[in-house]
Amino acid sequence: MTYATRMQLMKPSAIRETQALEDDPEVVSFCGGYPDPQYFPQKALAEAYQIVASSEPLALQYASSQGDLRLREQIADRMRKDGVECNERNILVLQGAQQGLDLVARLLIDAGDVLLTETPTFLGALLAFNPCEPAYAGVPIDEDGLIVEELEAALKANLGAKMLYVMPDFQNPTGVTLTLERRKRIIELANQYDVVILEDSPYRDIRYTGTNLPTLKQLDTEGRVIFLGSFSKTLAPGLRIGWAVAEPEIIQQLLQLKQAADTQTSTINMRVVSTYLERFDIDQHIAHLRTMYGRKRDLMLTGLQQHLPSEASFSRAEGGLFTWLQLPLHMDSDEFLKQHLIQQGKVAYVPGVHFFPATGERPRNFARISFSCASEQSIVQGVARMGEVLRNYLR
Amino acid sequence: MTYATRMQLMKPSAIRETQALEDDPEVVSFCGGYPDPQYFPQKALAEAYQIVASSEPLALQYASSQGDLRLREQIADRMRKDGVECNERNILVLQGAQQGLDLVARLLIDAGDVLLTETPTFLGALLAFNPCEPAYAGVPIDEDGLIVEELEAALKANLGAKMLYVMPDFQNPTGVTLTLERRKRIIELANQYDVVILEDSPYRDIRYTGTNLPTLKQLDTEGRVIFLGSFSKTLAPGLRIGWAVAEPEIIQQLLQLKQAADTQTSTINMRVVSTYLERFDIDQHIAHLRTMYGRKRDLMLTGLQQHLPSEASFSRAEGGLFTWLQLPLHMDSDEFLKQHLIQQGKVAYVPGVHFFPATGERPRNFARISFSCASEQSIVQGVARMGEVLRNYLR
Repeated sequence: MTYATRMQLMKPSAIRETQALEDDPEVVSFCGGYPDPQYFPQKALAEAYQIVASSEPLALQYASSQGDLRLREQIADRMRKDGVECNERNILVLQGAQQGLDLVARLLIDAGDVLLTETPTFLGALLAFNPCEPAYAGVPIDEDGLIVEELEAALKANLGAKMLYVMPDFQNPTGVTLTLERRKRIIELANQYDVVILEDSPYRDIRYTGTNLPTLKQLDTEGRVIFLGSFSKTLAPGLRIGWAVAEPEIIQQLLQLKQAADTQTSTINMRVVSTYLERFDIDQHIAHLRTMYGRKRDLMLTGLQQHLPSEASFSRAEGGLFTWLQLPLHMDSDEFLKQHLIQQGKVAYVPGVHFFPATGERPRNFARISFSCASEQSIVQGVARMGEVLRNYLR
Repeated sequence: MTYATRMQLMKPSAIRETQALEDDPEVVSFCGGYPDPQYFPQKALAEAYQIVASSEPLALQYASSQGDLRLREQIADRMRKDGVECNERNILVLQGAQQGLDLVARLLIDAGDVLLTETPTFLGALLAFNPCEPAYAGVPIDEDGLIVEELEAALKANLGAKMLYVMPDFQNPTGVTLTLERRKRIIELANQYDVVILEDSPYRDIRYTGTNLPTLKQLDTEGRVIFLGSFSKTLAPGLRIGWAVAEPEIIQQLLQLKQAADTQTSTINMRVVSTYLERFDIDQHIAHLRTMYGRKRDLMLTGLQQHLPSEASFSRAEGGLFTWLQLPLHMDSDEFLKQHLIQQGKVAYVPGVHFFPATGERPRNFARISFSCASEQSIVQGVARMGEVLRNYLR
């Protein structure tokens, strides 16, 4: 790590900066990408903990670094139902999908290696990649996701690029979904330019409209896609259970790094998720989540449609937890937030600038708006207030 | 990471190699460094899970990356009772102490930086350090721990060395404990040569004879010691709860890396350990562990005394889970294990060669013997059989 990278560690992250704002009870926060704790399957998970803690003494012992075998079988089973040919040897259980970002970057990226990302992209991914000191090459997105012509140009301009990081479903922060045609083209390009694809899809199950498209992993023809999934949004993030799906040889290398990094994920939490999957109906629970978050999403989009001035626009996320607000080009969303929106409107979002790699172009007129945590009433009121402050500002 | 380092990842680890041997039910295994699951406070932990899972919905939500505040206060409280001046700002909760090895190495070690370790040293530490590609400088130990004259020579020969990794209490793999005089001298030398000390003490509470000596962290005069502790041996490893104690500035940097690596440790597991510490008497439980493991240790040492030929010797660990077997210089403990001990004696240990960094001198005539997992009867029988096979071999 260079001195500059180390010093970068000392800076407060965008998430923590906005955390303080959220602590004001009068502020309606659209900041956090957190799931709503009201929708956690708390009773079922409490029962699973009770079963495991009282009947499985080995749930407190060390366990496989690759992850509890039964849980890996269950994850492989769910991935197969989603169209991905795999078995338990293709699965590595992770301390949340975030750990997958870290381990994959450490395996593949040396300082100066080119890493392609969507711009904007997930802040947590940048946090995980930064210590490896990649040379970021940003690829713009539109409402259909990563623009494949831009990807091709970036690959041509960066021969030898190591990895493409992409979030095809309801991307964080924009909420957009990659079309099937583009998914196929990305695989072709990755094959042609010999690039590993890191596919991150924590929101995949939380779809409100339309039907799921094949994962890049399903379309993968050469074993070059590493897929990351998570129970953080479908069950609960406090469990810290995610997973990677990849070729066994890649899983074995990631496993060695996982063993070095933290030995293993919590045995009891792995056993609890396995027990939950065995005894409860996760798909029924997910259907419930879709209904509940879908209502919040509809309220958010309807409110934005109604209250935003015509100079602003937003994405119509088919799933996930976010919409992406585009303000007029001359506006700075960070300044608008701090100088106007919080004080006058008591509303907060995350300024979009944080979702662009620090080394490239960083447009200032975007914002991420999450509809997952605020109550339905707060969404209605918050969006109306945001629209009003914005209209006054632009008047 | 260099190509060689990546390929190293593909090699089966020593732990996994010996795992297969342990699967034979006839073999008495002295391999694993695991605690005995019989001694887990299973009932109390099950109760704590029940309380937390049923009454704290936020135990399933995301939480502070630094760790649950109440748990940090409790850990700081226990550290203060152990002589270390600290508060919750000095504490980072980790995914087991193993994560501390990884994060500290990533923070401080760039490829080629000199990292001083005891030789032999903890295998998991080498696994965590290797991806950072340090230049290892081994410092020999004797029955009083790290030899400080050798440390001074190594510091002189490696000016600019970054870090000293040391396990002062009941070292893994040798079981030896660093004397007070040497602890003080190590602090002086670290100050003089401007080296960070990474103090790893997962077995500290498990002492059978004598009284605890001050931690290096307690003796630290310049805030250059990072202490790692763990509940893996006192409560249960499946929880994956460890911690670091260091200056707040260092904690903040490690925290940023932790956030990038896995966002946070499991919220519910942090709340459960906190609840356990609140409602149950961990010191009483530790006293019980000392009695139970102490009996196994006594059986092991008595048996070794009785059955080993005079050409072999072993360490008299005052605590922890291991003793260190020294065979005659001409013997290779790995070959003896595979060709003789397992087949004729149905006994297994971990050959000592694995505990030396791959780049330095690696004596072949040592073995780590753990007395934590085998039953009392197996210890008695296994040691007798090991002594017999060894006596026949040397005859």
